[in-house]
Amino acid sequence: MQIPVGVSNRHIHLSKDHIIRLFGCDLIRYRDLKQPGQFAAEQKLHLVGPKGKISNIRVLGPDRPQSQLEISKTDAVALGIEPPVRDSGNIENSPGLTLVGPAGQVELEQGVIIAHRHIHMPQKLAEEQGFEDKTMVSVRTQGPRAVTFHQVLLRVSDKFALEFHVDIDEANAALLQTGDKVTLE
Amino acid sequence: MQIPVGVSNRHIHLSKDHIIRLFGCDLIRYRDLKQPGQFAAEQKLHLVGPKGKISNIRVLGPDRPQSQLEISKTDAVALGIEPPVRDSGNIENSPGLTLVGPAGQVELEQGVIIAHRHIHMPQKLAEEQGFEDKTMVSVRTQGPRAVTFHQVLLRVSDKFALEFHVDIDEANAALLQTGDKVTLE
Repeated sequence: MQIPVGVSNRHIHLSKDHIIRLFGCDLIRYRDLKQPGQFAAEQKLHLVGPKGKISNIRVLGPDRPQSQLEISKTDAVALGIEPPVRDSGNIENSPGLTLVGPAGQVELEQGVIIAHRHIHMPQKLAEEQGFEDKTMVSVRTQGPRAVTFHQVLLRVSDKFALEFHVDIDEANAALLQTGDKVTLE
Repeated sequence: MQIPVGVSNRHIHLSKDHIIRLFGCDLIRYRDLKQPGQFAAEQKLHLVGPKGKISNIRVLGPDRPQSQLEISKTDAVALGIEPPVRDSGNIENSPGLTLVGPAGQVELEQGVIIAHRHIHMPQKLAEEQGFEDKTMVSVRTQGPRAVTFHQVLLRVSDKFALEFHVDIDEANAALLQTGDKVTLE
């Protein structure tokens, strides 16, 4: 099976409380993402870690119960923190840092992760092909830096569009761009 | 077979002429590298590309017939250039940029590459194990971001120490550090 790639740049999901404290208003939709209901917001914020700063982090909506910052290992080294590789929503014992917005700042206690690569698969397709939610699969790329990514988490839902999500480090290591196709092995 | 990893940060090899124009003196040995005869020099220089700058690029010695800058895809995006993925020494039709040193600057016409990952293997070990120079092999890593790197160029010489060379993007994508072990498949 061929799966289109979606490269995730660093981004943040915020709780309603944090949105108000950082921006003083609700999120404003900038553009829809490929996953139904998800959107990039107009708002951006800045990160301050023990070793460095990174500006202009895009906020993704809608709001979530817990704030969660997803960065690359490259970003983590620049900021001076050591986030774990985790599935979205699993932020226990992850590090925090300082979020700076135009209306205020938030000391995030925890919630910084390096996102575990994963595939979003629509329910109907998974049933047709015999794939189950939360199984680990491998996908292979082509070209001069061809790799097989093992330990790819398969997520199945009738709300998902088919997409293989990697971060910028993974994309650069394999020379992948959004819209490229990978093969499920 | 288990092979120790060597993570290559961005670095540059310089011709004798470029060394003199940039630094006004010969390279000064800072520390020896794992590959026999190779060393990191005390000298560093700065890169100026069409879109951005990167400071403090380590010069590796000894001097070479042609200058060659090895950077990551992440660096290439920051500088605004599109270097090809190439084996060391193969710089034809690669882009250039401006090198800035304390004694002068050099407009590099070509020589910027993203290094193709490779294994250095001592002749004796290769003979024992039946491996030939310039063949392509695959190596596998462990952990939450386990990958198989395909298209790994095997280089055999009696001057080599056993080592799998990757760049920072590849290391971060697989969470590899210098000294980790990978398995030749």
